[in-house]
Amino acid sequence: MVGEKVSSMDQVKALVFDVFGTVVDWRSGVAREFAAFLPAHGKAGLDPFALADAWRKLYQPGMEECRSGRRAFTRLDVLHRESLEQVLAANGITGASEGDLDHLNRAWHRLDPWPDVLLGLSRLKRKYFLAPLSNGNIALLANMAKRAMIPWDAILGAEPVRAYKPQPEAYQRTAELLALQPHEVCLVAAHNGDLRAARSAGLATAFVPRRSEHGPGQEVDLEAEDPWDCVARDFVDLASRLNCT
Amino acid sequence: MVGEKVSSMDQVKALVFDVFGTVVDWRSGVAREFAAFLPAHGKAGLDPFALADAWRKLYQPGMEECRSGRRAFTRLDVLHRESLEQVLAANGITGASEGDLDHLNRAWHRLDPWPDVLLGLSRLKRKYFLAPLSNGNIALLANMAKRAMIPWDAILGAEPVRAYKPQPEAYQRTAELLALQPHEVCLVAAHNGDLRAARSAGLATAFVPRRSEHGPGQEVDLEAEDPWDCVARDFVDLASRLNCT
Repeated sequence: MVGEKVSSMDQVKALVFDVFGTVVDWRSGVAREFAAFLPAHGKAGLDPFALADAWRKLYQPGMEECRSGRRAFTRLDVLHRESLEQVLAANGITGASEGDLDHLNRAWHRLDPWPDVLLGLSRLKRKYFLAPLSNGNIALLANMAKRAMIPWDAILGAEPVRAYKPQPEAYQRTAELLALQPHEVCLVAAHNGDLRAARSAGLATAFVPRRSEHGPGQEVDLEAEDPWDCVARDFVDLASRLNCT
Repeated sequence: MVGEKVSSMDQVKALVFDVFGTVVDWRSGVAREFAAFLPAHGKAGLDPFALADAWRKLYQPGMEECRSGRRAFTRLDVLHRESLEQVLAANGITGASEGDLDHLNRAWHRLDPWPDVLLGLSRLKRKYFLAPLSNGNIALLANMAKRAMIPWDAILGAEPVRAYKPQPEAYQRTAELLALQPHEVCLVAAHNGDLRAARSAGLATAFVPRRSEHGPGQEVDLEAEDPWDCVARDFVDLASRLNCT
């Protein structure tokens, strides 16, 4: 078992990362932006975390329209904007300016990494090629990385491959863009479902739990649910396990 | 005139760069790799610079097949490999292993920047979003950047937009990927033709001459041929002119 794990990670040349939840704390970040937005729009009484959760709840249905083929591939910034307008309408928030809406929509460009991310990635970068493999679009991921100094070697994800995870093409075409075989690429994610899809597509897999991604009452993805190729406490521990010290 | 120049650069948020010739010295880099390859294949008498020039001469015809629609968009690594085999055959070089050919083909992943590039880009990065807008593919540009520590904020270019410069889509879709208007993006290039196409597509333009790109007898692109929005001696001078000091 241990030998098997070592050998599947031994062939890995690139680590690709789920971003929302795995690299950055989307819930606190989006809630922080709602906390600034709500009082300015006469709704100081609303809970910014509830609005963040409501917005995130529309994330999968929006992408599912594209995955199913009912809608052409549409970048996440556009899907986010549509679902934001739904959330605001459902909460009786009207009259926000185009500029205010655009700024709030870009809350996803301004999310902060978990505390272990920058140190862990800076160590991993010496040995591995690092890139996001996120459903976020290129501008979102690149603006986030520039603001937070996340040291990616390239900005990959759904947009360049025009497929949303967990579609197999999202993983396979990303390996192809890197000129690597799927088994030379490892997905790092805090979500067992993402890792299952990556493994089915031939990628190596590493699990890092983020037990507060969904707030204090989180019930999903608390532990590795399958024997992933690597399981680490956080990105610094991941670096140690991959001999990047 | 000066006022006009300042205002068109004042709206620029992202600088995108031609790479082969503008950022890196492809001719010396490819010749260096031929100089190692030729003696190992019984052809020490051939001039590595002549082979570099011969390989580069097949660059435009290969892309033209894709631009014309006669061939689906095909990444540059594949076009390079096809043209490399032509160059070797024309020079009587046979029997190279698959591994040797693949390594030589990736000479384009291992090109070195001109001496002013890293200092200039590190200054420009504080104020601007920086990305390549090259006909090179993502793996090529990302491997080059990682090896040479070129501090791009994202890896863009022909592959994510599936169009080869000077097709207008190459410039326009790159602005779209950045979630910017074309006039908020400036192409930096050592080639007047590239800048003409970028200007037609609505981008701002900056010229930096590379007078030895084609070797000692270079006759093209020695000077700015149109009133580009900015003309600089090199990337450090470009940073100064754009108030990144």
